[in-house]
Parts: sequence; C-alpha cells; structure tokens
Amino acid sequence: MDDISPKFISFEGGEGAGKSTQIKLLAKWLTGRGVEVVMTREPGGSTGAEEIRELLVKGETDRWTPMSEALLMTAARAEHVERTIKPALKRGVWVLCDRFFDSTIAYQGGARGLGIDKMRELQDMALHGLTPDLTFILDLPVDVGLARACGREALREDREDRFERMNFAFHENIRDAYLKIAESEPDRCVVIDANRDITTLQNDLRAEVNHRLVGMK
Amino acid sequence: MDDISPKFISFEGGEGAGKSTQIKLLAKWLTGRGVEVVMTREPGGSTGAEEIRELLVKGETDRWTPMSEALLMTAARAEHVERTIKPALKRGVWVLCDRFFDSTIAYQGGARGLGIDKMRELQDMALHGLTPDLTFILDLPVDVGLARACGREALREDREDRFERMNFAFHENIRDAYLKIAESEPDRCVVIDANRDITTLQNDLRAEVNHRLVGMK
Repeated sequence: MDDISPKFISFEGGEGAGKSTQIKLLAKWLTGRGVEVVMTREPGGSTGAEEIRELLVKGETDRWTPMSEALLMTAARAEHVERTIKPALKRGVWVLCDRFFDSTIAYQGGARGLGIDKMRELQDMALHGLTPDLTFILDLPVDVGLARACGREALREDREDRFERMNFAFHENIRDAYLKIAESEPDRCVVIDANRDITTLQNDLRAEVNHRLVGMK
Repeated sequence: MDDISPKFISFEGGEGAGKSTQIKLLAKWLTGRGVEVVMTREPGGSTGAEEIRELLVKGETDRWTPMSEALLMTAARAEHVERTIKPALKRGVWVLCDRFFDSTIAYQGGARGLGIDKMRELQDMALHGLTPDLTFILDLPVDVGLARACGREALREDREDRFERMNFAFHENIRDAYLKIAESEPDRCVVIDANRDITTLQNDLRAEVNHRLVGMK
C-alpha cells in the first residue's frame, strides 16, 4: 500500500454509536496491512485545541451561546488540522478522527438551530476547504443510542419528564442533520447501520475503505 | 435625549492612538447629557469572553494559527454581544466599545493575511449582521503610534533590526486595512486624525456624534 496517498477518515454519529471501538479495530486492520495510522479525536487533538476543549466541556450547559460554541469548536479544529492532521498526512500517515466538522454541522447547525448550510460554510472558511477523504456516519435510532449511552433505565416511561423529551428531540435533530449531510455529499459520506454487532459493522467499514479508498484485496 | 434610541459606538486604531482616553471623555460628556453609558472592551467584556481572552493574551506569540486566533476572537465577540452589548442596548444604555469586529478584520484579515473580505464575512455570520451604529477609526502614522506606545527609544536607527522592521510592516498593514474598511463603509466609519491634542480630538468626536447620531446641540 506504499503507493497509496495517505487518507483522512472521520467518524461521526450520536452517542452510543460505537465510534471509538470501530476506530480502534479499523486502525488495527490498517496497521496489519503496513499502513501507518494516527488516531485522534475532537474537540482536541493538539495542545491549543485541548485548551479550547477545556472551555467547552466544563461548566454549565448554557455557558456558551450556540454560535460561540460553534466558533470555539471550529477554532480548536483549525488548530487540530494545522498542528496534527496536515502534518500527519504530509508524513504519509493515515488519520482516523473521532468526530470532525460534521459534528459542528449536526450539533450546532442542526440541533442548536444555527443552520446546516451556515455551519458548512463556516467550516469551509476556517479550514480553507480541507475535507475528509471519507466520512463514516454511524447511524442508530435515537432510542437505541440513548439506551446504549445512558442505560435502559433512562428511557422507562415514568422517567419521561420534559427534559428527557427535549433531549430526545435534540438527538433526533442531530440524527436528521447527519442524514441530510450524507445525502448532500454522497461521494464523501457513507451511512452505516450501527444497530448491528461489532464485527459485522467493522466488516462493512473495511469493505468501504477497500472499495472507496484503496482497492485493497 | 430620552427619545433617541441607544447607540453602539466602537473605537478602533493601532497602538498608541489614544482610544481609552477618548472613550472615557466621550462617556463623561454623554453622561452629562443624561445618557446612560456602558464602557466595554475586546477581547473580553463578559464572563465567557474573558476566559477566551486568557487564551489569547498569554503564551507564545505563535501559539495560535491566524485562523484560530480570528475564530477565538470572534467566539469571544459573539459572547460579548449576546451577554453584554445587546442587553445594554435593550435597557436603553449606550455602548462605547474599545475595539470591535474591525480589529479582527484589520489584524487577522489585513496584517495576518486571512483577507479583509473573508473576515468581514465571518463577522456577519457570527453576529447575525450586528454592526455598530458608528465606528471611530483613530488614525496615526505608524511611527508616531509606535513611538507613543513603546517610547521614542524603540525607533532609534541603531535599534532597527529585522524584528523591528517586521513589526513596522505589520502595523502599516493594520493601518492600511483600517483605511480600506473606512472607505468601504463610509456611513458607519469615521477616520479621525489622532495626531492632535486630546481636546481637539475629543471635540471632533463629539461633533460627529452630534451630527451623525443625535442632532444634539
């Protein structure tokens, strides 16, 4: 695989979709085929980006306006791209990234109401058009994802207060946004049914990498 | 002046132009005329924005890429607008702001090479089109500004090493960018010759406020 230019693959999806497990398995498979791989994740992935991450993950849920949140995420991403992703690709190393710009488009653009097109435009501006070679969208029905992430308890009927319902709608909006992104960029995005066992899912990912990126046997 | 809607005035210019002195004098004059005024400054001006400011002002000069710097500045601004500026205007309070989006346009867009139009577009997107009612650009020849800011020592011929010269060109680019902004938005921006004494300059600002915003006697 020495003659194949290094690829940048991002992994997207709601909570509980199994992104990190699948990334590790794919990295292991690629490494076994002589491909050097770096695994990274957002927000974060470089010194400055991790400092911005601190601002994003701590404190009250409403501490940032949706727009500030989107801009902070994108500032961290611009750092991550320049300090980690581009240098890796330049060295011939493949990049597997847990969340990339589609997260901002789906969360802040879709679920927090800033608009999918507007957030896509922001990413283009901030990253000078840099785009993953391939994006896996690990898709799950929201109830399945939430149940996986929080335990089945959280979805019992007697727990469904207003906050739970808001949460549910929020996650539905994220899922819808991801599916819209996939629809509008079919060459880059592959929607993967994540409601299946780990091995079946991983085999699908490997087949897509083979088919779309390298034509490996 | 009860019948006049509250105004948002920003003050721009390079180092040593005298912005903070002029803002204080203008605030005093407005207060004397029964106008409630808030003075604020960027980056910062609200809790979250001050936390972002910390990331921007500390550490190595090259710790952020120009784009990350612009996005962090703009994230802080989006917070500042929602938490401080808009609420003040809603309460009927005038806002005098030491630096606003033209600083990002001039510094990151002009001097750091991201492009004036691109940075203007980012501000529009991030602030949903919010624009000051009036912007004073306090203009000074770069050598005068640097001399004021750093003391005349810094400009003696025997101190002019490469770094000094780079600095000088950087500040020239900022000045040029400010003048271009003023040219493209004459209804909003007034270029003020800041190479004059404090009182003369202040009288000019008051005359412009009278003329452009309120028709005060």
